[in-house]
Amino acid sequence: MSLSFNIIALIGRGADERVASTMKGLAPHLAKRGVRVLVANELEVDLPCEFVEQVPEAELPKHADLIVAVGGDGTMLYASHLVARHEVPVLGINRGRLGFLADVTPDAMLRNMDEVLDGNFTREPRLLLASRIGGNEGPESERLALNDVVLQKSEAGRMLEFETHVDGRFVNSHSSDGMIIASPTGSTAYALSCNGPILQPKLHALVLVPISPHTLSDRPIVIPATQEVEIRMLERRETRAQVVCDGQLTADLEAGASLHVSAARQSLGLIHPPGYDYYRTLRSKLQWGRGSSGRPGTRKG
Amino acid sequence: MSLSFNIIALIGRGADERVASTMKGLAPHLAKRGVRVLVANELEVDLPCEFVEQVPEAELPKHADLIVAVGGDGTMLYASHLVARHEVPVLGINRGRLGFLADVTPDAMLRNMDEVLDGNFTREPRLLLASRIGGNEGPESERLALNDVVLQKSEAGRMLEFETHVDGRFVNSHSSDGMIIASPTGSTAYALSCNGPILQPKLHALVLVPISPHTLSDRPIVIPATQEVEIRMLERRETRAQVVCDGQLTADLEAGASLHVSAARQSLGLIHPPGYDYYRTLRSKLQWGRGSSGRPGTRKG
Amino acid sequence: MSLSFNIIALIGRGADERVASTMKGLAPHLAKRGVRVLVANELEVDLPCEFVEQVPEAELPKHADLIVAVGGDGTMLYASHLVARHEVPVLGINRGRLGFLADVTPDAMLRNMDEVLDGNFTREPRLLLASRIGGNEGPESERLALNDVVLQKSEAGRMLEFETHVDGRFVNSHSSDGMIIASPTGSTAYALSCNGPILQPKLHALVLVPISPHTLSDRPIVIPATQEVEIRMLERRETRAQVVCDGQLTADLEAGASLHVSAARQSLGLIHPPGYDYYRTLRSKLQWGRGSSGRPGTRKG
Amino acid sequence: MSLSFNIIALIGRGADERVASTMKGLAPHLAKRGVRVLVANELEVDLPCEFVEQVPEAELPKHADLIVAVGGDGTMLYASHLVARHEVPVLGINRGRLGFLADVTPDAMLRNMDEVLDGNFTREPRLLLASRIGGNEGPESERLALNDVVLQKSEAGRMLEFETHVDGRFVNSHSSDGMIIASPTGSTAYALSCNGPILQPKLHALVLVPISPHTLSDRPIVIPATQEVEIRMLERRETRAQVVCDGQLTADLEAGASLHVSAARQSLGLIHPPGYDYYRTLRSKLQWGRGSSGRPGTRKG
Repeated sequence: MSLSFNIIALIGRGADERVASTMKGLAPHLAKRGVRVLVANELEVDLPCEFVEQVPEAELPKHADLIVAVGGDGTMLYASHLVARHEVPVLGINRGRLGFLADVTPDAMLRNMDEVLDGNFTREPRLLLASRIGGNEGPESERLALNDVVLQKSEAGRMLEFETHVDGRFVNSHSSDGMIIASPTGSTAYALSCNGPILQPKLHALVLVPISPHTLSDRPIVIPATQEVEIRMLERRETRAQVVCDGQLTADLEAGASLHVSAARQSLGLIHPPGYDYYRTLRSKLQWGRGSSGRPGTRKG
Repeated sequence: MSLSFNIIALIGRGADERVASTMKGLAPHLAKRGVRVLVANELEVDLPCEFVEQVPEAELPKHADLIVAVGGDGTMLYASHLVARHEVPVLGINRGRLGFLADVTPDAMLRNMDEVLDGNFTREPRLLLASRIGGNEGPESERLALNDVVLQKSEAGRMLEFETHVDGRFVNSHSSDGMIIASPTGSTAYALSCNGPILQPKLHALVLVPISPHTLSDRPIVIPATQEVEIRMLERRETRAQVVCDGQLTADLEAGASLHVSAARQSLGLIHPPGYDYYRTLRSKLQWGRGSSGRPGTRKG
Repeated sequence: MSLSFNIIALIGRGADERVASTMKGLAPHLAKRGVRVLVANELEVDLPCEFVEQVPEAELPKHADLIVAVGGDGTMLYASHLVARHEVPVLGINRGRLGFLADVTPDAMLRNMDEVLDGNFTREPRLLLASRIGGNEGPESERLALNDVVLQKSEAGRMLEFETHVDGRFVNSHSSDGMIIASPTGSTAYALSCNGPILQPKLHALVLVPISPHTLSDRPIVIPATQEVEIRMLERRETRAQVVCDGQLTADLEAGASLHVSAARQSLGLIHPPGYDYYRTLRSKLQWGRGSSGRPGTRKG
Repeated sequence: MSLSFNIIALIGRGADERVASTMKGLAPHLAKRGVRVLVANELEVDLPCEFVEQVPEAELPKHADLIVAVGGDGTMLYASHLVARHEVPVLGINRGRLGFLADVTPDAMLRNMDEVLDGNFTREPRLLLASRIGGNEGPESERLALNDVVLQKSEAGRMLEFETHVDGRFVNSHSSDGMIIASPTGSTAYALSCNGPILQPKLHALVLVPISPHTLSDRPIVIPATQEVEIRMLERRETRAQVVCDGQLTADLEAGASLHVSAARQSLGLIHPPGYDYYRTLRSKLQWGRGSSGRPGTRKG
């Protein structure tokens, strides 16, 4: 992997008019700077062949030095899965307002891309999660996730019953709608809706967040990312559970089966133009600084 | 109390330039409509005596048919205490953005006041809380609150230990930083910051919300407003607790003492111009509809 | 419905040895007191025909003055559905430790039943919920629930998008895993796991509790039980939602469809022997009074 | 510091009869094993001088190889402050049930002490926090804490307004009752009551937990313990704030002042006999595995 970006692949959901329009502005700009621009055959955007080359989407990370993902955080997740095993970095251009991951706005896009091409950027590694079902060995049975690996019920109205173990030690038995194992990146996604804390991305840690737990003291636990999580479905009642990685259903988990989650060997490289500020993104996305509860300052006269 | 408003008192913190400016626009408008306008002697706003009469602030609710409170929700709280024993209704004009209680905006003020003077308004009763310290009987020992009666520690680093009783029945013993007893109006104030639910104002209920409780299952309880809450400080350790009504310190509560809270006989009448919508206020104040956690919709291509 | 109990039906999951054993102790005792004892044909307990008569389960509430449910709170839910349209009261005998609803313990059973037969009991009405899918009119399309009506996603990884309306007024638009509409009885069940408050059963109210909401300020709302809740699925994305009443899947809800929930005309009558104490049950079930977080009292020497 | 323990100091609140009785059993046992046993002059326990030597309490950590703290977690906190600058390890004997920190029970005490004296133990380092007020430099202005450094209001009814910065970067402005900066050890203390997550002690991290925040999305943030936290009180309103370290008031913080918190250079060494299990302590203290909310498994017949 080179950190001068000579070949850049654009990805995004071209059917979205804002995505298409952004790509149409970006591709010629990059081409004029001498960058080879790749897009997927499948891309639903009509870009002049003088500026771009088409390859199958799965081939993009083999050829490109950088993936530019145009869209929202969903597109960034998609891009992270495309590149995860190739260690090609990703830069995100948002369609609209700031995303957690796609932090270049359309109006700053050309200026920011120029800065990045001039070597004026930071590369931030983000922890990826690796999950596998117990009994399935080998790298091909491993699924990667940027945000979270979620165990959830697949049947209405029934709680799951399972145990958590960390590095082989029994932690707790749970009755709940499921369990989220989130990376720092994912701590501001689904996990946050389930009372999980925010993990700063520099923290090499995972968080286990139970979903709607039966026991009210069954609280999120943050552990070092060097440790492995195992979730064991209990045998004792008929159970239908699912494993969902970054929002995609990846497996069913039966009674007695186990799910293993740890930090992946790979990480995702996020490319940020100058001025990137993680906390500004938090403040913007979480509406910080705009009053919520109506607790007035009291007055005396 | 008449529901045609011939005499209107303006109150507010005149030192605030926006408040003064609002009053300067409002007073002549009301005077021209034939309304007698009263202000407090103490008001720090220079209003022409051709439009307004000055009386001591405490006298205002004896003379006025309506109090118009100019400011934020803190001013509305202040107004509610001024009028509580006189059952004079209150209308709130906000300086800036929408308040939970002050729901007339400066730009709609003149039009809305005309509507109200024409009889085109709704009068919404809001439950008031009455609190007293055990052993002190008689109405003069009673303190009223619109939002909440709060028991809180007055010493650093120590939890309070106390019991709650409802209508004479023991509910629970608590170790916590305190307890909030909130009305529906107060449910969106301090109580909301302590994990309390929102109570719709039409619900005749109180909510007990423990502050930072030691026991994680010590959760908010909603009870009918026909029932009386008693909080008894335990004897067993040195304790310094305070009682705070609507943000104002009203009493110290010693070990062994008790605090009684129930719905007051009086209620507060809020006057709303046409188009008032409680839920719109909630949506605006709680930033509903603006995404918070970064849980993206997933994409498949 | 008579409040002297001459005909009593026993229900429970007879395959559970503790349930069978309890029934074997109870049936002869009741028979000796001159009570006619009914059981379902389907009951898997071998009770001598000298003590009991068998009828189809669905017929039990037509003949009995009282249903005695033996088991846990799940059995009480089951019993509540059996009797809901007949207004026959229910008394619950727990197999093991105290339940929220089944509040007679096996060791106190014979004494408590004698007290009840002697007229020494209280009858506590519990609010039932009625739900129906929009467009389906008539009582036969109505489903009753004692605890809760739950809207939940039926597909992995996708949030639901829907609007809530109360008595025809728009409340909020939600992105979440679903929504719980709970009765006071249900407020200590699933809703409590999703940050909902406890509603005292005497409170005639419903609570709307969002499940893992995207917006962190999307908080539980308590409304009078005289008001009707409507949930409208948004059209804008493919959605698969389910409606679950007291843990039983009752319907799928498609994009554009609506779910209506209100208090049912019927209520459930719970029969309690003397000494019933709602708060004692809360304290026991929620482990109140046993320290949770490790916040020590400080010492000075 | 030696890890063979030849000189052991006993500390505890001797006025507590259970503490005194434990010490009376322990001191002769240690003496017979050839250990020199030290106690503070101030200790209110009558121990025979043949077994123990008295020195001023502040001198204990200069002479002892190990501090044995007899009492609860409060005594462990006290011991941690006594030894913090001397790096003498601490072993905790609980009076009653298991503590988060004092994990030797009275009945296992003699056996466990023998194991420890035989070298059969683990030494677990626990992160300490160092706090200082801005403008005060030098080690003597630094206060250490094992659990937490807490900024809290010192006046009834008013929120604090302050900013957080991490490693010099602005994080957020807050309106709340205060802020807890907790170590992993402290994450199960006060922070847990304020919705904070559990941090496993092996995680080298701090957590910032706002107390009753005005903005509902103002959530706990976990950061690497290599980073420094700064809290700046805003100038804009009269403010009276306090800094509390491990439950002890240490300073007032005025408008415009700042509080700095980071990991201390020192750590606390906890000595555990064989079989110590952090998760077992969690399960015991948090009442895990005992059902809380009443969400019954549903039954079908």
